[in-house]
Amino acid sequence: MKPHLPELNPFLLRFEEALGHLVRSEVLFIRLIHQDLVTAGGKRIRPRLAFLASRALGGAPFELELALAVELLHSATLLHDDLIDEAELRRGKEAAYRRYGNAVSVLSGDFLLSRLLHVIAKTGSLELVEMFAETARVLSEGEVLQFQVAALEDYSLENYERIITAKTAVLMALATEGAAVLKGVNGAVREALKRFGLLYGQAFQMRDDYLDLMGSPEVLGKPVGGDVREGKATLITLLLMEEAPWVREVLKRRASEPGDLERLRALARESGVAEEVERRIRLRAEAAQQALDPLPDSPYKEALKGLAQAEGERLA
Amino acid sequence: MKPHLPELNPFLLRFEEALGHLVRSEVLFIRLIHQDLVTAGGKRIRPRLAFLASRALGGAPFELELALAVELLHSATLLHDDLIDEAELRRGKEAAYRRYGNAVSVLSGDFLLSRLLHVIAKTGSLELVEMFAETARVLSEGEVLQFQVAALEDYSLENYERIITAKTAVLMALATEGAAVLKGVNGAVREALKRFGLLYGQAFQMRDDYLDLMGSPEVLGKPVGGDVREGKATLITLLLMEEAPWVREVLKRRASEPGDLERLRALARESGVAEEVERRIRLRAEAAQQALDPLPDSPYKEALKGLAQAEGERLA
Repeated sequence: MKPHLPELNPFLLRFEEALGHLVRSEVLFIRLIHQDLVTAGGKRIRPRLAFLASRALGGAPFELELALAVELLHSATLLHDDLIDEAELRRGKEAAYRRYGNAVSVLSGDFLLSRLLHVIAKTGSLELVEMFAETARVLSEGEVLQFQVAALEDYSLENYERIITAKTAVLMALATEGAAVLKGVNGAVREALKRFGLLYGQAFQMRDDYLDLMGSPEVLGKPVGGDVREGKATLITLLLMEEAPWVREVLKRRASEPGDLERLRALARESGVAEEVERRIRLRAEAAQQALDPLPDSPYKEALKGLAQAEGERLA
Repeated sequence: MKPHLPELNPFLLRFEEALGHLVRSEVLFIRLIHQDLVTAGGKRIRPRLAFLASRALGGAPFELELALAVELLHSATLLHDDLIDEAELRRGKEAAYRRYGNAVSVLSGDFLLSRLLHVIAKTGSLELVEMFAETARVLSEGEVLQFQVAALEDYSLENYERIITAKTAVLMALATEGAAVLKGVNGAVREALKRFGLLYGQAFQMRDDYLDLMGSPEVLGKPVGGDVREGKATLITLLLMEEAPWVREVLKRRASEPGDLERLRALARESGVAEEVERRIRLRAEAAQQALDPLPDSPYKEALKGLAQAEGERLA
């Protein structure tokens, strides 16, 4: 049963309004980029996490600022990521840099980071500033590591876990643990929120990576196989490598031969690897839900659990 | 006469050591980029400014952290700038992104920004955090504005002043005003340090831009004319446009015809525009020196004035 959360939509509306205000700029080219990326929306998962974690604790001060800050870090990363992924499509639109050049994309990301710094300074919490510093460090290291692993073909499950934790999970964990910091809550409850964010973030990225190969292009709104074409090994390709030696060759040649992606998809289905990956995602999502045990029961706790559970079934 | 500053070199040594420690990373590709850019040095002008401003006030707490933070913001900007400028050479070495791809360059810049956030959190000054946020905002806007002006050919002296202030002067001003904030000094002295930083930074950038066209490639260690080739109008080209209509055409075609740069240099010398630009740089540098009047006399104040005066003559 879906928990009833009458405050969620008003919060998200306030969030959109505050975000639009925060990223306003006198410089035309920054406005153009932001219309695209920031104000066009997205699922706002990180702000939702911040809101739910805050409310699960009875409401933390500066929950809106926390929600803004985590989303700004995420958006800046997307802008800096467009270069990396050479993503054809981002949220169903042409990647910003294709129209205005890499330069404007990168610098608009920097602009977002400056606004992030502004909004965390507003919370008055130096501990939160330090946590954002640490998260941003791990995030950038994770992104570079992903590039390095692809360049050196240093494929392993261990590296995969490091990458999904660094590039996705730590920011989710900041959204949830940050609420505890602002509320002044420590001990088991703070630890539970952090663990939830990490496990949920890992499940989320595992699901994204799974869909990148196994999803339906129509439902995803983008072509499948982006990771393979960039030489990025994810859980599914790592397990497929154990099934057949030619999988590594496909990754090496960035799926450049006709039928490469279809062969990978067929092997994943026939070998049971697709099912195994789905099983591991569900396990991670269940661990995320269990991590919340130390929290008092509330509709917000249920909503957090519901987010994790949804990763077991998400199709896009 | 050069003021005697026995503490300067020990400070710079501590600075290099602390910087090396701060940007250490477990990720190989980040280490490679940083060997290049951060630890290879540079003139460390911003850390010098922070040191001199601090000592001119009798020594501010966390002066080393301030010096580190301003240099990290500068270095991150250089890494994000390599994409923009497509600079062939940066500090006499091959631009980092050419060897490791734009991706690693941008992300290594992000890593530096995360370390900057860490080091300002250490000062415990939320006012300084907010000042860095504001400076980073203006800086990124200035860089985008420069790109926008080139793309739209929106050339004017007013835009030129906005760009040099935003992309260079505000960070110099943060280095000097930041010392006052850490020392708890307000009023005329704080304002004087801020004004000095702004005026000095403007003179510095005006000199850089002048040398970009009029300097000697041997002394600079890089080819001249980079700005013109990127369609960037600086003070000298703006004044040359008033001398001859073909100057705008040269800028539009990014100096793509043989002899374009030599024609600009010859016109600058013959028309007196080169001399006029030198005169304006000296005026700005003198204004910077005068801005320091409210400060008590000290060798540090003299050293700050000396830095400004040097912009009147700098050849590289």
